[in-house]
Amino acid sequence: MKLFDDPISGNGYKIRLLLSQLNKPYTYQKVDIGKGETRTEAFLALNPNGRIPLLALDGGQIIAESNAILFYLSEGTGYLPTDGLSRAHVLQWMFFEQYSHEPYIAVLRHWLKHLGRAEDEEIRERRAKGYAALDVMESHLKDQDFFVGETYSIADIALYAYTHVAEEGGFDLSNYPSVREWLSRVAAQPGYIGIEEVPDG
Amino acid sequence: MKLFDDPISGNGYKIRLLLSQLNKPYTYQKVDIGKGETRTEAFLALNPNGRIPLLALDGGQIIAESNAILFYLSEGTGYLPTDGLSRAHVLQWMFFEQYSHEPYIAVLRHWLKHLGRAEDEEIRERRAKGYAALDVMESHLKDQDFFVGETYSIADIALYAYTHVAEEGGFDLSNYPSVREWLSRVAAQPGYIGIEEVPDG
Repeated sequence: MKLFDDPISGNGYKIRLLLSQLNKPYTYQKVDIGKGETRTEAFLALNPNGRIPLLALDGGQIIAESNAILFYLSEGTGYLPTDGLSRAHVLQWMFFEQYSHEPYIAVLRHWLKHLGRAEDEEIRERRAKGYAALDVMESHLKDQDFFVGETYSIADIALYAYTHVAEEGGFDLSNYPSVREWLSRVAAQPGYIGIEEVPDG
Repeated sequence: MKLFDDPISGNGYKIRLLLSQLNKPYTYQKVDIGKGETRTEAFLALNPNGRIPLLALDGGQIIAESNAILFYLSEGTGYLPTDGLSRAHVLQWMFFEQYSHEPYIAVLRHWLKHLGRAEDEEIRERRAKGYAALDVMESHLKDQDFFVGETYSIADIALYAYTHVAEEGGFDLSNYPSVREWLSRVAAQPGYIGIEEVPDG
């Protein structure tokens, strides 16, 4: 299979991390968001929504949306629970990530680290909402080691990707001890790779 | 089971619609967002993220996030396909809905219809992004009757909820013929109920 991805993307890192942990071979196709490569006619033919990561299966079928790709790849593995309620909770945290976390924590990292945008009112508003997401995570992780049950799953991968680099968006995690311990537990999982470890391609 | 929901919510309507189509009995618990009822200590104990809809199962277990609830309730029914790739595509469209559609199309409906906010720059920016989501939907629906395969699924429910009331947020659907035909197909499904049809509670 082939992963279309920009190395700067935490959403892409989710897939790189899981594929490493599953020890699955794949081809890596760099797509440079900054150069507009997600907006070319060729790329829009693959994903009309113009976003990476995008997974192309060997038969040519395409899956978009990082968390949908995680779900697809983890089915039948230890990274996705089998019972209905736990699966619902995995999805609950992945939808939380995309709606209440990524638009604040990932977007501020992009604006500050990649675009060099200066602090302004919109950044302050988004930072407050990012801290609200971190508050929810801290409260949940006080009682358990991972987001769903006591087992590392794709819910942890989805939330880890941008949380562990939140400081690049100006977030201070020093008041989030449970989150920081959880970050260490994720980084200690077998097959772990860092966000900077990107295949050639 | 018990559904915590605000009657004005399209996210809640997704669950009301599916439960009607599944012919499942449930208790309805109104939670008034406008009166701050999602921010009380009692509600935050159920969902620390302070959002409806929220489903409480008979055993007391809680599921948050509308699309995670849809997935849980539809498992084993005709509203969720069984093969891995189709399930990935259902999730792809549900993540698209929460990331690229709801923050624009649902939020503008709330601002205009419920809060009476006047047109401003932020509304114009969000409206452009809402139209971009409608463009993606129109392009996809040119070739097929429903979002995944040729069968009505929870992907359609998730996208229908706010699309069919997009005009309340100032969106004009007249240039989206495939979307409008799809809206009619959804409204013709067995067990369909309208967004205003809310149980007593």
